[in-house]
Amino acid sequence: MLKMACCGSCVCSRCCCRDGEIRTPEELTILGETREDEDEILPRKDYESLDYDRCINEPYVEVLEGLDNKKAKKYEAVKWILVFAIGVSTGLIGVFVDFFVHLFTQVKFKLVGSSVEECSENGCLALSLLELLAFNMAFVFIASVLVLIEPVAAGSGIPEIKSYLNGVKIPGIVRLRTFVCKAVGVLFAVAGGLFVGKEGPMIHSGAIVGAGLSQFQSITFKKIHFQFPYFRSDRDKRDFVSAGAAAGVAAAFGAPIGGTLFSLEEGCSFWNQALTWKVLFCSMSATFTLNFFRSGINYSKWGSFQLPGLLNFGEFKCLDGDKQCHLWTAVDLAFFVLMGLVGGLLGALFNCVNKRLAKYRMRNVHPKAKFIRVLESLLVCMVTTVVVFMASMTLGECRDLTSPVDNSTAVPMSANEDVNSTIRQFFCTNKTYNDMATLFFNPQEIAIYQLFHQDATFSPVTLSLFFVLYFLLSCWTYGVSVPSGLFVPSLLCGASLGRLVANVLKMNLGMHIYSGTFALIGAAAFLGGVVRMTISLTVILIESTNEITYGLPIMITLMVAKWTGDFFNKGIYDIHIHLRGVPLLEWETEVEMDKLTASDIMEPNLTYVYPHTRVQSLVSILRTTVYHAFPVVTENRDNEKEFMKGNILISNNIRFKKTSVLTRAGEQRRRCQSMKSYPSSELRNVCDERPGTEPADEGRDILQQMLERSLR
Amino acid sequence: MLKMACCGSCVCSRCCCRDGEIRTPEELTILGETREDEDEILPRKDYESLDYDRCINEPYVEVLEGLDNKKAKKYEAVKWILVFAIGVSTGLIGVFVDFFVHLFTQVKFKLVGSSVEECSENGCLALSLLELLAFNMAFVFIASVLVLIEPVAAGSGIPEIKSYLNGVKIPGIVRLRTFVCKAVGVLFAVAGGLFVGKEGPMIHSGAIVGAGLSQFQSITFKKIHFQFPYFRSDRDKRDFVSAGAAAGVAAAFGAPIGGTLFSLEEGCSFWNQALTWKVLFCSMSATFTLNFFRSGINYSKWGSFQLPGLLNFGEFKCLDGDKQCHLWTAVDLAFFVLMGLVGGLLGALFNCVNKRLAKYRMRNVHPKAKFIRVLESLLVCMVTTVVVFMASMTLGECRDLTSPVDNSTAVPMSANEDVNSTIRQFFCTNKTYNDMATLFFNPQEIAIYQLFHQDATFSPVTLSLFFVLYFLLSCWTYGVSVPSGLFVPSLLCGASLGRLVANVLKMNLGMHIYSGTFALIGAAAFLGGVVRMTISLTVILIESTNEITYGLPIMITLMVAKWTGDFFNKGIYDIHIHLRGVPLLEWETEVEMDKLTASDIMEPNLTYVYPHTRVQSLVSILRTTVYHAFPVVTENRDNEKEFMKGNILISNNIRFKKTSVLTRAGEQRRRCQSMKSYPSSELRNVCDERPGTEPADEGRDILQQMLERSLR
Repeated sequence: MLKMACCGSCVCSRCCCRDGEIRTPEELTILGETREDEDEILPRKDYESLDYDRCINEPYVEVLEGLDNKKAKKYEAVKWILVFAIGVSTGLIGVFVDFFVHLFTQVKFKLVGSSVEECSENGCLALSLLELLAFNMAFVFIASVLVLIEPVAAGSGIPEIKSYLNGVKIPGIVRLRTFVCKAVGVLFAVAGGLFVGKEGPMIHSGAIVGAGLSQFQSITFKKIHFQFPYFRSDRDKRDFVSAGAAAGVAAAFGAPIGGTLFSLEEGCSFWNQALTWKVLFCSMSATFTLNFFRSGINYSKWGSFQLPGLLNFGEFKCLDGDKQCHLWTAVDLAFFVLMGLVGGLLGALFNCVNKRLAKYRMRNVHPKAKFIRVLESLLVCMVTTVVVFMASMTLGECRDLTSPVDNSTAVPMSANEDVNSTIRQFFCTNKTYNDMATLFFNPQEIAIYQLFHQDATFSPVTLSLFFVLYFLLSCWTYGVSVPSGLFVPSLLCGASLGRLVANVLKMNLGMHIYSGTFALIGAAAFLGGVVRMTISLTVILIESTNEITYGLPIMITLMVAKWTGDFFNKGIYDIHIHLRGVPLLEWETEVEMDKLTASDIMEPNLTYVYPHTRVQSLVSILRTTVYHAFPVVTENRDNEKEFMKGNILISNNIRFKKTSVLTRAGEQRRRCQSMKSYPSSELRNVCDERPGTEPADEGRDILQQMLERSLR
Repeated sequence: MLKMACCGSCVCSRCCCRDGEIRTPEELTILGETREDEDEILPRKDYESLDYDRCINEPYVEVLEGLDNKKAKKYEAVKWILVFAIGVSTGLIGVFVDFFVHLFTQVKFKLVGSSVEECSENGCLALSLLELLAFNMAFVFIASVLVLIEPVAAGSGIPEIKSYLNGVKIPGIVRLRTFVCKAVGVLFAVAGGLFVGKEGPMIHSGAIVGAGLSQFQSITFKKIHFQFPYFRSDRDKRDFVSAGAAAGVAAAFGAPIGGTLFSLEEGCSFWNQALTWKVLFCSMSATFTLNFFRSGINYSKWGSFQLPGLLNFGEFKCLDGDKQCHLWTAVDLAFFVLMGLVGGLLGALFNCVNKRLAKYRMRNVHPKAKFIRVLESLLVCMVTTVVVFMASMTLGECRDLTSPVDNSTAVPMSANEDVNSTIRQFFCTNKTYNDMATLFFNPQEIAIYQLFHQDATFSPVTLSLFFVLYFLLSCWTYGVSVPSGLFVPSLLCGASLGRLVANVLKMNLGMHIYSGTFALIGAAAFLGGVVRMTISLTVILIESTNEITYGLPIMITLMVAKWTGDFFNKGIYDIHIHLRGVPLLEWETEVEMDKLTASDIMEPNLTYVYPHTRVQSLVSILRTTVYHAFPVVTENRDNEKEFMKGNILISNNIRFKKTSVLTRAGEQRRRCQSMKSYPSSELRNVCDERPGTEPADEGRDILQQMLERSLR
């Protein structure tokens, strides 16, 4: 059954639906004519599309003709200023989130840590656990309630942004309320000790900043409203959202180029060269704003730039004295390929399990009262906390801080004092440390840093246990109604696996390898297996390590992981997009799709209106359909030219004057007025059955309803 | 007059052509109706366009329908293998060029160097100069003769590749002969001491490899011919050319991401997401192939990867002990902006002078006998050699190897021994070195390395003189008929300027700065001012330094440099594209272009043929026009539907069967036969004046000519 869920859709249709059909099963699947039983219970919203095509009409041509070089340059300058502002704002959000996560986590671990150290003598560990539980559950409760206020703020936001960039409108996705819930929520979710990252939500937050700043007005706060009516089209807004998302990645990972490529990879169907340059600038602004403030706050060195990105992998390097040490050699590549394979398999398993969980949630959790979701979050939080606590206390081993094997080959102590400052010594005597607690009882970023740079070893048992627990818990967590990134948990999961491989190779086979590299590759492999991103992930990881020579191993690992994973199912983001029923057209379509023609996918029973249509007919149409635009057809069908002329969308019929594009509401009012001017309306599809007997007054009320509906 | 040439075109037309016109002068300029006097004497070839649009016709649909998932996967696998092969081959070319340049240069400098040291006592320096001259002129002669064989091999090749990627066909640009002349030619040009780089030609070489390998056949060597008839369309071939060009950049600078972005930036009008991933893979293969072999050859450490890229900027870092040292701080950014400004101005001057030189060459050198070009190359070589020699001998200052100022603040001696191993001590006593000779009497890469990493100082006079001499000579050199890159000379020029700024700030203002950073920023500023590349150049430079924190300063500098330069003229590559009369449509068009409609640029007097056309008429058409495709119009014009049906290009009329797309020649033969099948041909435009009196036999000969012409 598990397998069926993973790759069921095509296997099933291939074996049972072939006979007597003209179309191949693949085509049918694409056309949505064969559907899995499971899919049918899922919600299928009819999303609207964003208007990314340039619409050449009279008012647009008028605007174009009014444009000269000077105006165009001003327009361009405003764009540059805006992307700079977006970058800086996104960077500041990163600083804000990071600062409070850091603060809360520090307070929490300090209190609980000292309590544990006291209690390990007094035997009052249950008290420490309760203390930790109280902290975590309070934080997670806040995060969860914030998501109740704005449900779109749940999850990482990357599926939503991907949909948005590809032209699917998900309501509320770039609203200010979502932003606040997301940014504050992720702060508490991370501080609450859930196995979630703050990187995915950073991307979403950045995107919202991009969409919001460029509008010079706010729907939530009506007071915020500048007279600057540019960039209101979906097309322009999307460019700023791309920039914002890129800035989010850039701030999260200190990877400006990676951020740019992320936007390029995810929103590629609409891209232009001029945008690349602006997006890179925006990303750079975000990275260095974050860097500037974090360096200032953490090291009190204002003006220096030493802390790129929220997530920092630290410096991978051999000590100068050690001539035998290599970060990696050609031989290691073979292991990296194998690790990529394993990462792909595990990633596919992760996605498969998470998909089933998500479906379960949709069926059994979402239909119920909203507080059930909060309870689920609290349950996850409780289990996570207990596991973290118990594992740290009971399953850890005490390990020497100096490497136990072959001091002859001079495994160098890390030059960096930082690594050893974050170890945990619970129950261990001096000069040794509790390896499980070091991984579990620290913020995730520090655990990753430990796995990458701790020269002393972790026991294989600890690493395996850590991996299994982390895998299960993070898989359970992704999808709970809190803002939750997936990058950091995946990296940590994979890093423990990679470190395990390094241990085996070093101890059992006695190879001279650099453990940190293997941990990094493991992290890349697992993350690649889960998210299946390609070029942007490669570049993000290269930039996070600040070591260009890792390019080849990271890329090869990610390629193998992606291909292995793709054999079984899609990437986690695509799975969640699919589960939400978002009609996203991927860049790389299946071969069978190339054979379809327009007639295969177009609606044969068109709902259209005549120029003279009764209001009530329009209302019925609006009530019975989900579209917002209808072709207007003139009554005289014989004259084909006239028909062609009428066959344009309603939205184009509404005159867009330059002076009147100020607000969306204004446009709606005008649309409403233009409808009033057709009192003797006629309608074909719907109204033939219902004769128009309602009085005119009621018609007005209905109009009001329509207006409200459109404004919603 | 100089200013006129720089920005004359629009200034002139704006002031003198306004009266009485309906169109604005900008529009007229775009439409080519106003032309500068100077432009008219330039050659204007009528380039053909490459067929990058997917052409949906019956045979194509047939092929599509024959495609299933299995075949599509095989096709995809072959593509991956091909891009890998392209990457590896490009890397190997890099190794080959580098190895021989290294070898020749070493031999040359060793012999001449020891001769100088002998002669500085005996006073026989003229002999040393003659020795150097003999070496250089012999090398440059070879390079120049190779370019005579294949004139397209001259220059950097970047303008040509840009044109190709944007759909303009320049004959011979991706042929094997061009490749050999380019790769071998650049080797000798660089070894001959000309101020040219080997990086630009690497890009061209890579592109040719991409175009060639994917075809599984060679036009030059007819014997090389595999039965593998894929990727013959312009569209597929272009994808491989993109990959090859990216691999070239990647190999040249050790910048795989930069390479990918280079292809993206230059060939952006045709791009898809799947390609990005393949191109990155190709670039990585190239970088690491080069890295593997160079590490092996130079350090005898096979399997380690220590030498990324032909051009390597070395590691910028502060010594661990020095807490005061920063690579850059926020304050430095202000200077970087100023340097960007100066770089942009100087770059514009460089381009302006080079443009005038190029025009002069076109008028006075190119029309004459070919050996004149060789003589010009030799003249440039001679002057360069003499300048290098004289400057090194007479203008250098002896500088201390330890920094002369404030030892108290502990300016650290470079940890890297490499820097001091390449200094030149001509006429200087022990512990001091000749700064001018160190810059001039070394390969350019080493001079750049010195400017970036030499902790001891260069005298301001030396740096200024070096800059001026280098600026003038490299400006003269670019355009001479040898393969010649522009990156390294520009970087070196700019680096000397940056180092000068650093000197001034350090000595005169006593600021604590890192000289290497200023040299780097100077290099970026000047290079940016000359080539005006944006995102790809930023990334290339970041990757070359292997230091992500340089992202912001490099980007800001490049932005300022580009904007400053764009105020005066275009980038050097665009200038050369323009001078060659290539009809390249830029990604960012001018505002005025948006106002044009199709009727403004379309040819009103169409040359078309009827289905029944006489051969001689066709021949006349082919003789009097430069097109290769004509609309076929049915005679019955009243029936509009028939007319529409006939209004397709000839190339679509030729049935493309799957079994018959094997060779281009085969296609031509079939095209020829299909023409024979219309014996009673009629023609409108041309033949009305010339009655068809020629005999049928001659008609056949003409057909033969046509065939040859098409095959050419």
